Amino acid sequence: MATISSSLLLKTPTKIQFLPKTHFTTPLNLPLPTRFTSKKNGSSSGSIGSGTRIRSGLLIEPDGGKLVTLLVEESQRELKKEEGFKLPQIKLTKIDIEWVHVLSEGWASPLKGFMRESEFLQTLHFNSIRIENGSVVNMSVPIVLAIDDEKKNQIGGSTSVALVDDENNPIAILSDIEIYKHNKEERIARTWGTTAPGLPYADKAITHAGNWLIGGDLKVIEPIKYHDGLDRFRLSPAELRDEFTRRNADAVFAFQLRNPVHNGHALLMTDTRQRLLEMGYKNPVLLLHPLGGYTKADDVPLHWRMKQHEKVLEDGVLDPETTVVSIFPSPMHYAGPTEVQWHAKARINAGANFYIVGRDPAGMGHPLEKRDLYDADHGKKVLSMAPGLERLNILPFRVAAYDKTKNGMAFFDPSRPQDFIFISGTKMRTLAKNKESPPDGFMCPGGWKVLVEYYDSLAQAENGRVSEPVSV
Amino acid sequence: MATISSSLLLKTPTKIQFLPKTHFTTPLNLPLPTRFTSKKNGSSSGSIGSGTRIRSGLLIEPDGGKLVTLLVEESQRELKKEEGFKLPQIKLTKIDIEWVHVLSEGWASPLKGFMRESEFLQTLHFNSIRIENGSVVNMSVPIVLAIDDEKKNQIGGSTSVALVDDENNPIAILSDIEIYKHNKEERIARTWGTTAPGLPYADKAITHAGNWLIGGDLKVIEPIKYHDGLDRFRLSPAELRDEFTRRNADAVFAFQLRNPVHNGHALLMTDTRQRLLEMGYKNPVLLLHPLGGYTKADDVPLHWRMKQHEKVLEDGVLDPETTVVSIFPSPMHYAGPTEVQWHAKARINAGANFYIVGRDPAGMGHPLEKRDLYDADHGKKVLSMAPGLERLNILPFRVAAYDKTKNGMAFFDPSRPQDFIFISGTKMRTLAKNKESPPDGFMCPGGWKVLVEYYDSLAQAENGRVSEPVSV
Repeated sequence: MATISSSLLLKTPTKIQFLPKTHFTTPLNLPLPTRFTSKKNGSSSGSIGSGTRIRSGLLIEPDGGKLVTLLVEESQRELKKEEGFKLPQIKLTKIDIEWVHVLSEGWASPLKGFMRESEFLQTLHFNSIRIENGSVVNMSVPIVLAIDDEKKNQIGGSTSVALVDDENNPIAILSDIEIYKHNKEERIARTWGTTAPGLPYADKAITHAGNWLIGGDLKVIEPIKYHDGLDRFRLSPAELRDEFTRRNADAVFAFQLRNPVHNGHALLMTDTRQRLLEMGYKNPVLLLHPLGGYTKADDVPLHWRMKQHEKVLEDGVLDPETTVVSIFPSPMHYAGPTEVQWHAKARINAGANFYIVGRDPAGMGHPLEKRDLYDADHGKKVLSMAPGLERLNILPFRVAAYDKTKNGMAFFDPSRPQDFIFISGTKMRTLAKNKESPPDGFMCPGGWKVLVEYYDSLAQAENGRVSEPVSV
Repeated sequence: MATISSSLLLKTPTKIQFLPKTHFTTPLNLPLPTRFTSKKNGSSSGSIGSGTRIRSGLLIEPDGGKLVTLLVEESQRELKKEEGFKLPQIKLTKIDIEWVHVLSEGWASPLKGFMRESEFLQTLHFNSIRIENGSVVNMSVPIVLAIDDEKKNQIGGSTSVALVDDENNPIAILSDIEIYKHNKEERIARTWGTTAPGLPYADKAITHAGNWLIGGDLKVIEPIKYHDGLDRFRLSPAELRDEFTRRNADAVFAFQLRNPVHNGHALLMTDTRQRLLEMGYKNPVLLLHPLGGYTKADDVPLHWRMKQHEKVLEDGVLDPETTVVSIFPSPMHYAGPTEVQWHAKARINAGANFYIVGRDPAGMGHPLEKRDLYDADHGKKVLSMAPGLERLNILPFRVAAYDKTKNGMAFFDPSRPQDFIFISGTKMRTLAKNKESPPDGFMCPGGWKVLVEYYDSLAQAENGRVSEPVSV
């Protein structure tokens, strides 16, 4: 493996980050893309190459027709880094870095950097952006970088800035910059449909951020890594496309999640594949795509979720042959109908042409009132009407619940409601915290055990005991 | 004139409302459409008719390809009224009636009634609506009708309702209805970009409105009239199109206003016509289009504004030959960049293919903070990028100010800023209230006198004296 790694390093420098490292603290037994197990690597050419090209053509086109990648050529990295040391510097927050990651790999294609004002305004007002050829791409969530008055003054007349990490190491260069006003209230109101204090992302990344936004063309010096043992699951849209092509997928259905997987989810995913087969697709592949960026404090952290997903897959609930597990690097907004568009749009760029949308996607409780912030059906409705997403097939979630007559999760049958139990996220958390078991068949025992362990680790931390650090 | 009126009544029943009545309390000397002075009426056919058709083709197409009119055929009016007495009834507010007016004449084409949920959601999220043929029309402001819980229960399973006036007379029928939740906070946040208390329209028409919205297909029994002496200036989009066609307009440029006209406005309008002539148009016609619906308490009421516009036109500042003065029946939202799209879109339906946009259109001060609610440039920027408005030519307002060297309004020359005085709306109001005069050449003396009279009438009312009722 080390030999292959080295040869890959020379041939396809931007890809080495995804090769498994032996020193991972928690090796997970999740189905890796075939590229990590097959002898054929991305650079193989000849007859395979041309075959690949043809199969590639079956995947949905990225927004704007071409997948954006904003990584500096390896030969230019040192040069760019040096340039970065000479430019005015902007220190990135953790969330900023997640957005740099998102942008660098083209999840937001055709965006080529942090938004300038015209892109920001179109996002806020139209949830879509008109591109040069006159067509419209979806873009519902502002991908912007805030700076304060002092930083703005410091930048002065410079046309480029360096984006640096905590230790002032240049991560990226932003050039041909544009600085414009950051009207936070308006941004929050138009993105969330409320300005109530207590929106997690707003509290974390907007309210205390600077009064200016800086947009421009981004060039990222090195692939973004987190060194948390999960980097190998962070496949870029290009890598996912390669993977789907290698698997001869003729349909890719994406399932976005930020919660543990229970058997209702599994049922839905299996059922979706079945429906796609019935529609005539020969090889529908599932992209099981947990969100890996910022999440609010009471969500289960990524690391624990990945452990839980591993158990679920081990249990055979999902077929590894037709499932790709990967991490979506975006931070979470909890902006309901606005955000679900982003979640769907990004998956088009990764090659998905089907998107499963659930009840109240990207939703949460209202920060001040005793109700959900969004109507549970609005996400699905808005998604199905969203500009720029016409090419994507929206698959509404069928409601699954615990069927007492079957001792397992099943699609809810409204003719016999008395047979079903709905197990809410809150209920699930309460059970896991109290180390109680859910009804048999709700979740595979291995997966449940992970959740119990997670809540146990939280309780121990609260009791002042040293606990395993939790990755976010 | 009475004879012509009667004959029109038979031939083109929906048009009689615009004929001047002799008992108007305040006959205004504003240039009326030629139809009111010419012998040829809208029904004239033959060679003129075919000529008209060709010229009609020169005007911009209405949104959706066809101008919507929702008036009941005259022969069906009594029947519809009777139907209305039998249906569940919804009592309309003054603003509701203004929207019924707007919808009935097709300003919001292709909307056929108060919005159903899919239209409402698209308006809030995308400022545009996808129509049956797959194309997109602009729609930025929700045109919705609110009802409370009690009314919803009362409607029960009925598929139609009657919309009635203060005295329970049916004004319109709404059929094939859909009732859905009125999330007021979300509606306000997404429309205004703030939820701060003190937004005039929200305070007036949303915050205390019912928790449900009711959409459906609208049929309006009789043309909406206000009997305030100004109805003859309320030309429908169809009538405006006829007027532009009769005038052989090959370009129509619309100027939306809700304030008194000063010489800076006049300069801009004259200059715009000049520019259009230079572009090769032979007969550009100005649609001077004051907004006639709800305005906030400190705006100058419509009636006084129309008096002021009359004086400005009498003064010869604008050429009546190439100017059509008409009233736009929409209520005002003060929603800045969101609302300016509505203002522009509605004028497309009236035949305008050029739209003049000023600084901070439809803007106001932030209700709580000491700043403008919107960035002064956002309206223009958002308008120029808005989906569904691609066909409209946006003409940004050139800044006019008082040029001391010319003793008149002139386009601001940044090379000699010291020569210019900016006279804000607040400054203008203060001067008029104090019966002081603005600098010579700021506004024609007759127009200024109207303003002084208006503020005088306000002061008298405040002092407890009986004053002339002010129409809103």
